[in-house]
Amino acid sequence: MKPVCLIIGAGAGVGGHVGKRFAQAGYHAVLCRRSDEAGLQKLVADIESAGGSAEGRIVDASQPDTIESLIAEVEAHVGPIEVLVYNLGAQIGNRELKETSAKAFELGWRLGTFGLFRAASTALPYMEERGHGTVLVTSATAAVRGNAGQHSHAAAMGGRRMLCQSLNAEFGPKGIHVAHILVDGAVDAPDTLGKMLGEENFRKLRETRGSADGLLLPEKMAETYFHLAQQHRSVWTHELDMRSYSDLPWWNH
Amino acid sequence: MKPVCLIIGAGAGVGGHVGKRFAQAGYHAVLCRRSDEAGLQKLVADIESAGGSAEGRIVDASQPDTIESLIAEVEAHVGPIEVLVYNLGAQIGNRELKETSAKAFELGWRLGTFGLFRAASTALPYMEERGHGTVLVTSATAAVRGNAGQHSHAAAMGGRRMLCQSLNAEFGPKGIHVAHILVDGAVDAPDTLGKMLGEENFRKLRETRGSADGLLLPEKMAETYFHLAQQHRSVWTHELDMRSYSDLPWWNH
Amino acid sequence: MKPVCLIIGAGAGVGGHVGKRFAQAGYHAVLCRRSDEAGLQKLVADIESAGGSAEGRIVDASQPDTIESLIAEVEAHVGPIEVLVYNLGAQIGNRELKETSAKAFELGWRLGTFGLFRAASTALPYMEERGHGTVLVTSATAAVRGNAGQHSHAAAMGGRRMLCQSLNAEFGPKGIHVAHILVDGAVDAPDTLGKMLGEENFRKLRETRGSADGLLLPEKMAETYFHLAQQHRSVWTHELDMRSYSDLPWWNH
Amino acid sequence: MKPVCLIIGAGAGVGGHVGKRFAQAGYHAVLCRRSDEAGLQKLVADIESAGGSAEGRIVDASQPDTIESLIAEVEAHVGPIEVLVYNLGAQIGNRELKETSAKAFELGWRLGTFGLFRAASTALPYMEERGHGTVLVTSATAAVRGNAGQHSHAAAMGGRRMLCQSLNAEFGPKGIHVAHILVDGAVDAPDTLGKMLGEENFRKLRETRGSADGLLLPEKMAETYFHLAQQHRSVWTHELDMRSYSDLPWWNH
Repeated sequence: MKPVCLIIGAGAGVGGHVGKRFAQAGYHAVLCRRSDEAGLQKLVADIESAGGSAEGRIVDASQPDTIESLIAEVEAHVGPIEVLVYNLGAQIGNRELKETSAKAFELGWRLGTFGLFRAASTALPYMEERGHGTVLVTSATAAVRGNAGQHSHAAAMGGRRMLCQSLNAEFGPKGIHVAHILVDGAVDAPDTLGKMLGEENFRKLRETRGSADGLLLPEKMAETYFHLAQQHRSVWTHELDMRSYSDLPWWNH
Repeated sequence: MKPVCLIIGAGAGVGGHVGKRFAQAGYHAVLCRRSDEAGLQKLVADIESAGGSAEGRIVDASQPDTIESLIAEVEAHVGPIEVLVYNLGAQIGNRELKETSAKAFELGWRLGTFGLFRAASTALPYMEERGHGTVLVTSATAAVRGNAGQHSHAAAMGGRRMLCQSLNAEFGPKGIHVAHILVDGAVDAPDTLGKMLGEENFRKLRETRGSADGLLLPEKMAETYFHLAQQHRSVWTHELDMRSYSDLPWWNH
Repeated sequence: MKPVCLIIGAGAGVGGHVGKRFAQAGYHAVLCRRSDEAGLQKLVADIESAGGSAEGRIVDASQPDTIESLIAEVEAHVGPIEVLVYNLGAQIGNRELKETSAKAFELGWRLGTFGLFRAASTALPYMEERGHGTVLVTSATAAVRGNAGQHSHAAAMGGRRMLCQSLNAEFGPKGIHVAHILVDGAVDAPDTLGKMLGEENFRKLRETRGSADGLLLPEKMAETYFHLAQQHRSVWTHELDMRSYSDLPWWNH
Repeated sequence: MKPVCLIIGAGAGVGGHVGKRFAQAGYHAVLCRRSDEAGLQKLVADIESAGGSAEGRIVDASQPDTIESLIAEVEAHVGPIEVLVYNLGAQIGNRELKETSAKAFELGWRLGTFGLFRAASTALPYMEERGHGTVLVTSATAAVRGNAGQHSHAAAMGGRRMLCQSLNAEFGPKGIHVAHILVDGAVDAPDTLGKMLGEENFRKLRETRGSADGLLLPEKMAETYFHLAQQHRSVWTHELDMRSYSDLPWWNH
């Protein structure tokens, strides 16, 4: 039975490419997303046609018991989750406080923080029993600094980062690698950034930044996700940042 | 009409002493807490007998529309909220992940992060219209590092800190001072730490640390809260830490 | 005998105003600077005419044994140094790496890091023997992030910040308060920023930012320096930031 | 001509293993250390017997013009330095302030901060002309927090970290990858940690921690150094931490 790489948040960007990379290395990729069954099946087909093993699930992580059942079901019927990738974003674009509804703020938390708590609460006992496992959490600049207009996103990601540290403190010594991946820049992902900006603006941004490598390329990001999961347990990385060479880090002006 | 200092989370510890300090300087203190009407009235009486002005409110900040009505009502009938002190804690003691229920995790967020969002969303438009105001947010070490057993608390406080930065980025230039006060140590407060530890353990801790000043003394903390509210707007502090001289900062072992 | 507030780096900006503030509260201010005897004497005269007590010293902190003799001499003949303010800057403006000479880089360290080590090594044993004392260290954004062109300054200030933490860890429990003051913005100081920018550019900057409070006003900063030195030892602040309300913090873009 | 991986600080620990890893991948490793010609030649022989290419140099980085000549000479006669690994430590063990001489403090800076400045100043112009290159800097927990007794080390490493950020800000957009590798734990390295602790204590530490993987294994660390140098320039990591699974991160107690 192949080890499973379960990806919560697997669109055509980071999640999908991470799935491809792990499948290429012999994992069975379980790809989950909220909608777009067709896109999901295409992703599965791409992986399979490259000789990999994968399957797709439509899951709405904001709803009760969805993440919990998913993980239980995969462990029961698919295989041991060796790598869990939590890749749900919670970015809603810049909004002034008065335009940030309590509902939007809460949804940010549900996807950004609470969903990770639910996924970890369900998956970590399995990993703990096996004495090994990896949890890779995609995160954002908003986890380390709150910009204007980022009330919901920053609160959600700040919570996510602290939760990752707390999970790591409890589960690291039990042999489970928790990593917080700080994606500090725009990802060249048509179905998240692309949708948020609109097609035309996204095309312009790519041109301005250099279409080859001015945005973070998801397939290249996937190499680092994979590396993290391969680190020997004597040298685990808990946190790293990533950005394009042409971008300034968040701490620089 | 006296300027109002509204304190959400005003027990016998930090919140109460901050209220006393501002009342002593001529503010009208509006003290809010979830329960203990008698304790609340004693606090008001203490302030009044020292020549200050105060009133108390019983408010459950975890419930819908409570914070919102409170603020609207104070602005309408009591006076302009010049200083808002958000002093609700969300510490539930150390708990392993498997002992941290989804409900406890959510409550942490409701008090730790969401309540501040609700308070800010309601109070800041008043302050913005006046062009000045101060928001002082009590925070904890868990806002900057997640320890084992702190899943709920760290996620809540990490969200709180990022929210403070985001609020500051939007409202600082509008003349509103937002400060994040990182309380990095145990506070000598009988009705929060005291209750969590139990009477006997609390007494022992105080003795071990030095009963005079080994824990943070709330009345001394109040001096720094007051100083922050008096800083000229050309020199605002957004974040500072506080701890007893005998305690190591969180970053030291 | 009045307690001494010794200020290393006392020009017409932060250092001078801090001296005034402490003198006003009853300290004897010993003001040290590298040059401009006339400016120094004017500062002393200003303090004295306001009823305070002060004296001036010309000291080149980059030279061997200057700081050491100064402190020994003050302790022997002037009075106990209750507050030491280390206020020497090491900013040389933005320079590309190839324009940053080894000599400039070393001078940055001599003033930015090594001078503090020398001052602390000489003054702290006196304070330790008395069981109390305060060391206030002015620092800069470059202590927490290195921008392009800041090779010398960032390395010097990064060293300064870590040294402050190390000093605090050793001497805090001995009753000595070490505080690292992160000045995150341009100070309205004619003889540092003014000289670096030139008179015309400085005038323009002040106008752009708002001449009343768009830059950090040194006399207002001095209030916070003074507050830090008055904090009860149960509630010491080790680090705080300061900036004008109209400035974005270093972590925001 | 093979691309050169130049390692300043190549003993039997991290530096040596990084050299082996890059040599294995086709780089020519130039290994530099201050002393122990025999150990150096053994390292070269090991690499060569595994089919790799390497050479050794004895260099005292604390002396003037040594790093500069080394780099110029390698570029002129050996090959283009594609990867520069700055791996000099500056740890002198825990010492109280009064036992930290000005000389020791200065030496810490010379090896910890200034040597990197010199190496970067000499090597980066070559890389800039070629439009690519990688600078990997080994760093330590002391770069992000100053513990008691770490006055020299923390100041040196704090300076190193800020310098890395400043170098990255200037040279990242020019195609040069600068990475700051925060080694947050004891490395299983007989000739640095082993010498500092003494043979007996080192043996005990290894046993206590788990001799297989309780300390950071240098050959496993080398995999991550290598990965960093292979990251596509659209996804560069500037900073990551590393520690054994059984160690708590520096931010936890």
